[in-house]
Order: sequence, then C-alpha cells, then structure tokens
Amino acid sequence: MALNTAAHPYLLLIFLLTFCPVENTWAKQEERLTAEDSDPRVLKWMMGSPPPEDKLIMQPQSNYFGFPKLRWSVCHIRELLPTKQVSRGLGNPHPFKYEIDPGIDSIQFRTPNENKEMSWRESLSANYTDGILILHRDKVVYEEYFGCLNELGKHAAMSMTKSITGLLAEILIAEGKLDDTKLVSSVVPELTASAFGSATVRQVMDMTTALNYSEDYSNPEADIWRYSKAASPLPKNIGYSGPDGYYQYLQTVNKSGEHGHAFGYKTINTDALGWIISRISQRSISDLLSEKIWRRIGAEQDAYMTVDGRGVPFAGGGLSASLRDLARLGLLMLNKGVINGERIFSESVVEQIIRGGDKAAFAKAGYSSLNGGSYRSMWWVLHNKHNAYTARGVHGQTIYIDPTAEMVIVRFASYPEAKNANIDPTSLPAYQAVAEYLLNKDVQQ
Amino acid sequence: MALNTAAHPYLLLIFLLTFCPVENTWAKQEERLTAEDSDPRVLKWMMGSPPPEDKLIMQPQSNYFGFPKLRWSVCHIRELLPTKQVSRGLGNPHPFKYEIDPGIDSIQFRTPNENKEMSWRESLSANYTDGILILHRDKVVYEEYFGCLNELGKHAAMSMTKSITGLLAEILIAEGKLDDTKLVSSVVPELTASAFGSATVRQVMDMTTALNYSEDYSNPEADIWRYSKAASPLPKNIGYSGPDGYYQYLQTVNKSGEHGHAFGYKTINTDALGWIISRISQRSISDLLSEKIWRRIGAEQDAYMTVDGRGVPFAGGGLSASLRDLARLGLLMLNKGVINGERIFSESVVEQIIRGGDKAAFAKAGYSSLNGGSYRSMWWVLHNKHNAYTARGVHGQTIYIDPTAEMVIVRFASYPEAKNANIDPTSLPAYQAVAEYLLNKDVQQ
Repeated sequence: MALNTAAHPYLLLIFLLTFCPVENTWAKQEERLTAEDSDPRVLKWMMGSPPPEDKLIMQPQSNYFGFPKLRWSVCHIRELLPTKQVSRGLGNPHPFKYEIDPGIDSIQFRTPNENKEMSWRESLSANYTDGILILHRDKVVYEEYFGCLNELGKHAAMSMTKSITGLLAEILIAEGKLDDTKLVSSVVPELTASAFGSATVRQVMDMTTALNYSEDYSNPEADIWRYSKAASPLPKNIGYSGPDGYYQYLQTVNKSGEHGHAFGYKTINTDALGWIISRISQRSISDLLSEKIWRRIGAEQDAYMTVDGRGVPFAGGGLSASLRDLARLGLLMLNKGVINGERIFSESVVEQIIRGGDKAAFAKAGYSSLNGGSYRSMWWVLHNKHNAYTARGVHGQTIYIDPTAEMVIVRFASYPEAKNANIDPTSLPAYQAVAEYLLNKDVQQ
Repeated sequence: MALNTAAHPYLLLIFLLTFCPVENTWAKQEERLTAEDSDPRVLKWMMGSPPPEDKLIMQPQSNYFGFPKLRWSVCHIRELLPTKQVSRGLGNPHPFKYEIDPGIDSIQFRTPNENKEMSWRESLSANYTDGILILHRDKVVYEEYFGCLNELGKHAAMSMTKSITGLLAEILIAEGKLDDTKLVSSVVPELTASAFGSATVRQVMDMTTALNYSEDYSNPEADIWRYSKAASPLPKNIGYSGPDGYYQYLQTVNKSGEHGHAFGYKTINTDALGWIISRISQRSISDLLSEKIWRRIGAEQDAYMTVDGRGVPFAGGGLSASLRDLARLGLLMLNKGVINGERIFSESVVEQIIRGGDKAAFAKAGYSSLNGGSYRSMWWVLHNKHNAYTARGVHGQTIYIDPTAEMVIVRFASYPEAKNANIDPTSLPAYQAVAEYLLNKDVQQ
C-alpha cells in the first residue's frame, strides 16, 4: 500500500501540513476567531454520532493542525496517529495540595510591545489557553481549563517534548552512562557520515550543531518536507526511495559550517539525541521516560508519544500529557530532583540545565522576545532577574520555572499561530507579574 | 493523499489482511512454532534502536496480524493504529486480594477430541497464552504472564469487545433509556433502508438479524473486504467511492431472509449496536465505557479502542485492556453489578444476559465446540451444568464466568489461528476442571 503523491501535489501539501509537527506559518491573523469563539465546544468539532460532514476532523484528509481545528486536535493526537504509552505504573497517584488564590486573576501587567495594561485573566484568552496551573512551592495556587482540555484530558506538549528528552540525557549523564564530551559517532556509529557524527553529544543537546537543514516552509524542496515525509507513520508513496523514519532521515543530514558556534533551533537535533539516549539506555524514549520519571512522580495519568512508521517515538515533539502531570515534572525541576519527599535524580541534573548555554551563540539566532537568554539541554534559560527557565512548544506550550519565586507555571494552549514570539508579550510579563505577586505575598505573611 | 491500490492488488491484499480485525484463516499449521519458540522476546520483534530490518513490525507494510508477528502485535495495537482512550479516571486503583493456589498448575483434564490427558499448566502453552488470571469469589488464585504481556501491559480483547458493547446496551436498557423491542430504524433513522432498519434492537444484540454479508475471505469481492476498506483509518484510494467508516458501511448492508430465525455471528451487528448506543447516550462507546464502568471499578489502567477514519471506535473488536482490569469486569459480572462493595448497575443487566438467547437459532450456526449454547447480548451462554457464560475473541481471548464455582477466568492469547474452535478442546474442559477443583476445595474447607 503506497501513496500516489506525484499526481496530487495539493493533497501532498495538505498531508505535509497536517502531519508536520512544527510551525504552520499560514494562519491568517485578519479573520481570526477569538479564543471564546473558536472553542471547540462552540464550533462543535466531532460532536454527534456521526458529526456532520463539516464538523469532522480526520487524519490525514483534513488540515487538522490548522486553526481553528487545531483547538480540538491538540487534545486528540492519539485519535489521529499511532502512539506509544508512557506508563504511570499501577500505584496510587500522589495528589497535589491546593491553596487556590483568587487574587491571581486580577494581577495586572504591561505588554512590552504595545505597553498596554492587561490582567492575568485577560491574558488567558488572549493566548488561547487550554489549561494553566500555577504551583507556589508545593501547592497549587491556580488551575483552570478551557477549550478541549479538562483534568481528565491530555494535550500535545509539542516541543516541550525536547526539554524532557534533554532531561533524560542529563539523567543518563548524571548516572555516568552518557558522556556529553564524546562525539556522536562514538555512540551511534550509524551517524558517522552525517553532520551529527562530528558533533559532540553536548553540541546536539544545546543545538549548536552546524546542520545543512532548511525549515523554509514555502520551499517545497526544503529539508523540513523531506523530514516530514520520512517521519510520517503513514504508508510511503509507491517508488518512494527517501528515508523512512527518524533514524534513516538523520543519517542523510549534511554539515554546513562549524559545530559549536551558533545556536540553531532544529528539531532534528532532538531526534538525534533521542537515538543517542535509546542506544545508551537500550530503551525507547517513551519507556525510559516512564521508568525514570512518570512511574516515580505520582503521576495521575499515563502520557503518550507519537511514533514514526517504524515505532520510534518522536523525541522532538511527540508527547501528550495531562496538565497536572506536567506540573509534577515542573515541581521536580524546581526542587532539583525531589518530589513527594523522594529524590528521583541527582541535583546536578537540574544544575547542568539552569547554568544555561552559550549566550553569544544564542544571540546569533535573533530571538527578540528571549533577548539575553540561552539554550541548554533543550531548555530555554532566560537569564532574567529570577533565573527563570522554560520548556516551550509551538502554539503556546510552556513549563515556566521561577526558582526565585519558587513558582512553576504550566500552560497548554492552541494559539492560532505557531510562533511563540507572538504570544510572549502577553505571557512572559504575566508570568513575571505572578512571580512578584507570590514573592510579595510571602513577605507580607 | 490517497492510496493507489488499483495497480497493486498484492499490496491491497496485504493491507486488508493486516488491518482486518477478524479471522485470518491462512495460518499454516504444519510449520508452526511452539508458544515458547514464538515468544516475541525470543524472536526479538522490534528490539534494538533501531531493530534489524527483519525484526520490524510496521503498519501497514507488514502483515502484523499474521503469526508469529501476531504474538507481538496483540500487545501493541496503539503503536500501529489511532486509538481513543477509555479513561480510568484519576482516583486510586482498587487492588485485588490475593490467595494464589499453586495446586492449580497440576489440575488434570481430558481433551474431548483426542481424549488426551493434559495439565492446566500444559494447556497454557498449548493455547499460546499471553496472560491468564483466575478469580475465586473476590480473590485472585492464579495470575501468570507470558510472551508480550505483563501486568503493566495491555492486550487486544478482539471480539470480547462485542460483549462489552452488549453490556453497555443492557445497562442502557436497565436505565430505561433503550427499548430493545423497538426497530433499529426508530433509533437510528439513517439505518432505515439497510437490513438493520427492519430488525429490532434485540435481534441486533443477539445477532439474529438476516444480513446479506459474506465473510468468505478467499473471495476478494466478499463483503468483509468492503467492510475492512471502509473501517480502515488509513487514507482511502484515489477515486474510492465506497463507504468511509463504520456508520457509512452499515447503511449499505442489505437484508437476506427473515430476522429472528438464525444466529449469525457477524461483527457488523455490534457496530450497528455501537451506533445505537452512541445515538441514545450521546457518547462514543469509549467514553460511555469509561463513564459507566472503567471509572467505577477501581481499574488500574486506562483501556483504549481503535477508531475508523472518522473517529468512531470499533465497537465490534477494537478494545485493548490490561488483564487485571478485564478481570475486574468479570468480577462485576459474577457479582451481578457489584464490585468493591458498590453497585455499578442493576442486577437485571446480568440476569438478561445469563438467561441466554434462542438455542434453536444458535444451533443453526453449527458451533460444534459450543453445542447446546446460545448467544445473548453479545455474550456466549454455554448452558452447561455450571451455567457458565463467556466473552470470546479470535486467537483465544476469553472472559469465562462460572457462577456455580464463583469463578472468573480471563485469558489473553495469541494462538496462531483465529478460530477459537481450534483451542476450545484444550480450554473449555480445563476451565471446567478448575471450577470443579475450586468447588471441591470449598467443600473440604
């Protein structure tokens, strides 16, 4: 069974767009529905037995990652694609303590671009939030669900998956199983001839590899399309002779320039890191994530990861999880490896991440909303006055850890545009304002 | 994106075989590996990062439901197909009490065909058992895992899914929401012109509908192939004009003969019942199963169901679940709706099932290993001396409930051939022997 793509370029495009796990830059700002008006319950996607034809979201015939369908799809990835379980194990979940603070909704902040006053509550719909949870120390002080999400649901983590893959790598390093100074070729010999072969594991982890890899979506010959085709779990075209799956694709990536000089945010680094981790641990990323973290943090729900056509989990973006369980992971980071009174991994794991990466290398990439920041072990380190660091995914996914305010914010969202630069102005200052509010509350008590 | 099937009949055949949820009659008995030799850990399916080419099981390129790949695939359906979650909720699992009885392994029984003596333990590998659990009253007296399964895993329930769909229908009847004497056309008007329209809900539930539907696998024009094509979540062929999804397919089924006279085991009855249930409850089968059962029995794990290309769960065979959670469901049946001290549904639900169906209608279908039995609400009622009744699925899936011995046996298996008639001789007498052993033990204590 194969895909007759040659004769149907439009269909091919739709397929690539819909499968493509990365940025969709075609969302039209002008006609955009508000968060309330694009709520999937309002638009009635997939409601009814059967839903009316114009309310169906199907894979891969429909552009399921285009707005506003996106607002349904982010909670239903497993219904569209094959997935692997990230087991929570069989024990009792460990519930959070709650001390909800109704004052948070009215916290005010200024957006840096327009210098406009906005309340925390207003920021939630401005950012098309699906779920948001704030921890202060070990207590939940805020938890809200919108759109497709509720406490029983799971949501696409998108590129926050990268940070979790980076975390697994740091855990293996702390356990003495992985040496980040080694060349990738010494760990995964199959990558020797590719650009990755001559990079160190650390350069892959910090995305300072020099890869000849274009993410120019408007160019149908761009590498991102070859990658998407390889990564799809759907049957390949008859006569398709390109790479099949993440591992085969990675072997075809060529070098361009010198490793170690510039940060370049390219998902394939994480897929390469996923291969390194799986080779070292002799586990799939999803099984290792279960073993090292999910089974040990009192998770309420299993998580899951999408897979390619050969069963390899998508280390660069395939995770879906519940809001609370990602908050457990955030708390684990805040407390440097300890949760529910138990140490899960060495303190050095988090310390390696929060020291940050090469700021000069990062600056070259020109992320204006993250000025002065760096990227380390697949985490974004802000180097702001609170030493905050974050996991980020397109369309607004965030784990934001503020060690100074002892605060974790986890946000799932389905913002119409992929780029987080568009919602950072109504997000990062809001997080900072909540952090200051919580710090101030501590002083007053 | 569409499938160029016309030019590739062989690939089409492979696809249909691999997707097809029902019996694969092509397994070759002569060259058959034993249970031990075909253990997926021995054959190393999908082991390594990446697995060697000849150890890959992929959807849909490989015949993943052919033996011996089947022995891996039954535990990994979600990695091959899109699925919907059956949530257990967020509470604590309710653990079983254990009183393991090592004497069970040496229980002897006679196989009716060959009149050969066999021990319980021997029967497990004779039947390619993946997991088996025996409850006596509310205690686990036996629990073993083999092949691809362990306590953390899930296994395809195959047509045991039908019995669970039937159970949901009986629950809706007991709640006064569904009237089984009504015509299907009055509940789902879209089915009016089809064979189902003129059948009663009860005739669908008991599979005494008169359907013009052939399951002759050797005939490429057989209805089963049209059904498989419609049911596949994969993209349809370019120019494909047939039905898409279970609901569209059901509307094309014609009548042949009179309803109510003969039992005919046809999966599409259950898909029709699934539609009836979803229309009445305004829930997908998977959501209703979660709401009515999975969240209320102290389940350890979520279950899941495969879906068609329009998100409709496969009511006739799509469930995967853990061994213990299916045992919880068995216990709920044994105790007529009560588990962990709580009543989940009315006693009448189970009473409707165990009274059995029309024996004369059943006899016409010629199931020699189930002589004297009947089929009621998608359960097989044996009408034997212990009044046992069972859920059954191809390749050896069983929930066996013996009210007299107060025993539940749940078995997951991956027997090389689909037909249960082939393993009933080493299964049904074994179950009866264990039942008698447990009854006898009660007398002696």
